[in-house]
Amino acid sequence: MLRHLGFHAPRLAFNFKPRLVDGCNGQSLITRAFSAVVSPPSKAIVYEAHGAPDAVAKLVEIPAVEVKENEVCVKMLAAPINPSDINRIQGVYPVRPEPPAVGGYEGVGEVHSVGSSVSSLSPGDWVIPSPPSFGTWQTYIVKDENVWHKIDKGVPMEYAATITVNPLTALLMLEHCITLNSGDAIVQNGATSMVGQCVIQLAKSRGIHSVNIIRDRPGVDEVKERLKDMGADKVFTENELEVKNIKSLLGGIPEPALGFNCVGGNAASLVLKFLRQGGTMVTYGGMSKKPVTVSTSSFIFKDLSLRGFWLQKWLSTDKAEESRGMIDRLLRLVQEGKLKYKMELAPFDDFNTALDKALGKLGSQPKQVIKF
Amino acid sequence: MLRHLGFHAPRLAFNFKPRLVDGCNGQSLITRAFSAVVSPPSKAIVYEAHGAPDAVAKLVEIPAVEVKENEVCVKMLAAPINPSDINRIQGVYPVRPEPPAVGGYEGVGEVHSVGSSVSSLSPGDWVIPSPPSFGTWQTYIVKDENVWHKIDKGVPMEYAATITVNPLTALLMLEHCITLNSGDAIVQNGATSMVGQCVIQLAKSRGIHSVNIIRDRPGVDEVKERLKDMGADKVFTENELEVKNIKSLLGGIPEPALGFNCVGGNAASLVLKFLRQGGTMVTYGGMSKKPVTVSTSSFIFKDLSLRGFWLQKWLSTDKAEESRGMIDRLLRLVQEGKLKYKMELAPFDDFNTALDKALGKLGSQPKQVIKF
Repeated sequence: MLRHLGFHAPRLAFNFKPRLVDGCNGQSLITRAFSAVVSPPSKAIVYEAHGAPDAVAKLVEIPAVEVKENEVCVKMLAAPINPSDINRIQGVYPVRPEPPAVGGYEGVGEVHSVGSSVSSLSPGDWVIPSPPSFGTWQTYIVKDENVWHKIDKGVPMEYAATITVNPLTALLMLEHCITLNSGDAIVQNGATSMVGQCVIQLAKSRGIHSVNIIRDRPGVDEVKERLKDMGADKVFTENELEVKNIKSLLGGIPEPALGFNCVGGNAASLVLKFLRQGGTMVTYGGMSKKPVTVSTSSFIFKDLSLRGFWLQKWLSTDKAEESRGMIDRLLRLVQEGKLKYKMELAPFDDFNTALDKALGKLGSQPKQVIKF
Repeated sequence: MLRHLGFHAPRLAFNFKPRLVDGCNGQSLITRAFSAVVSPPSKAIVYEAHGAPDAVAKLVEIPAVEVKENEVCVKMLAAPINPSDINRIQGVYPVRPEPPAVGGYEGVGEVHSVGSSVSSLSPGDWVIPSPPSFGTWQTYIVKDENVWHKIDKGVPMEYAATITVNPLTALLMLEHCITLNSGDAIVQNGATSMVGQCVIQLAKSRGIHSVNIIRDRPGVDEVKERLKDMGADKVFTENELEVKNIKSLLGGIPEPALGFNCVGGNAASLVLKFLRQGGTMVTYGGMSKKPVTVSTSSFIFKDLSLRGFWLQKWLSTDKAEESRGMIDRLLRLVQEGKLKYKMELAPFDDFNTALDKALGKLGSQPKQVIKF
């Protein structure tokens, strides 16, 4: 199968066109003087149109492609199902590939073969697409050498697969919004989210206190205990914050200078209430689907600033090199046991179950990471 | 009366205590080897407690005070009734003098007499308290030489009396929030407010387009015409902006990079809708008493930033010299006919009517400026 499809098979990445999968599409084969490196055929989760992910995402077999001289063929090891992956398939994410497209945006793989002029990578190396890019839900990916960032193989694959979206978001929000010093405090809602868990641990590693807001839910004491074990100073449910003087709950912790909001609605208002004079709230999600509401006096007299953070935009502004350095820092923290979060490895063969879990159809579940 | 009260009479400014007005309060008169300069007795609008301004503000006679060697006695010429003056009397403004206190925060006066070591000012000079300070609603004020900023006597007194709060707010918001270049655009609601009128004209003088939002009201065409005569590029009522694609109304004007909100509620949402990707909205008032509501995607994907502006805070951060330079610039624009706004001079004797007008009890009225 590899040979007769040769290098005229479709590319797997951005410009993937499943309608070309069946053959050479009438193009003539070109004879080449040297033997071309080709990828193995690949299996991919493809959506042909936007829609409900469990309706439109299908397993598709993709023929082999040529690995050009500057390209690297990577055998994917693991890739997560992130909420933004789901939103891209649904067609509600502002920047998304046009269908038909392969799902997924980050992951980790092992170099399978390299083009003739590739010098920085060798078969067996572990690599991640950095900055992350579309189409990681497939068994083999061929992309330019520059796309791949070599990482230490000592990291558990599920962490390598998930480091470039959520932990990097947490690190950038902590380091690039305002200057925080050891002893300062931050406040966040959605503290059990993957970014939330990373914020707690990354703050802790810098001596920054964290005040955490979570939903009222069954088993709340266990959740609080888990977040405190990660380094959370304070954890409150939204109901516990229905008090007159919210800041009396801070105890000895300074009023937070920075807040993170991934929920909106009342949970965002609670973050604003905790902030100190002149504080900043950064919105990076809206899980409640409710807007953020702010009083006039919060702006004028409390001097609060509100802004957003979007990893994809940050990465689009010539930050590739800087982000790779940050990813290496994050992976070192993982290896040192200072950065942990809950994940579940799901076999690729059972992608549908993993997707159902990611879609919330099976109750609260850990982050689903596909193992190829 | 001047002589027998001497220099033991109460100070008129921050620490004014009306209970001392009646006499020497049991203190002995001190004989001095040189003749002390004393102010004339003063008449002031005083409130003894926070409350409804038309109930608590009273005309009080204040005895003469000594003019110390570094002090200047100023005969006030004019002072406005600003909304923030009313809020201070009501006790709802975050920074306010403790009652009993004299009302007012800005104004213009003529130097009446100076202390023995004062060299920068002479009787007859026109001065304004800069930065503005409490207690301008009185006929004579004695304060340190440094408090007073000498201005050109060629400016109409009602402009000199009103330049340090609203026009300075407009200028600072235009110049200190983001960098704007000629050809850029701003959007604002509350465009008929005094700050709004100044924004239009100051933007125009720098080649910056303004998009203006006003309330639906009787005589709206006349209001639009007046704002356009000032230099407004576009003026819309809120109802006119209930359209699907608000930006189609911009015509050839670029999407605004900066927005000003002094209303809140829907009028603030309209400002946000007009803003370009990465734009900033500055809130400096909340006339509708409704909060600002912002969607999650406005923060994340449209990358909007929201903040506040408060003149009193800006002035508190060592900006006295800079603000005097800006006031001189604004007064020059007034003299050149490039900065105009509607005011009504009201005789001090009829303060109560002016206050009723400022409180909105007599319908829509121009800014009330007391003439002493």
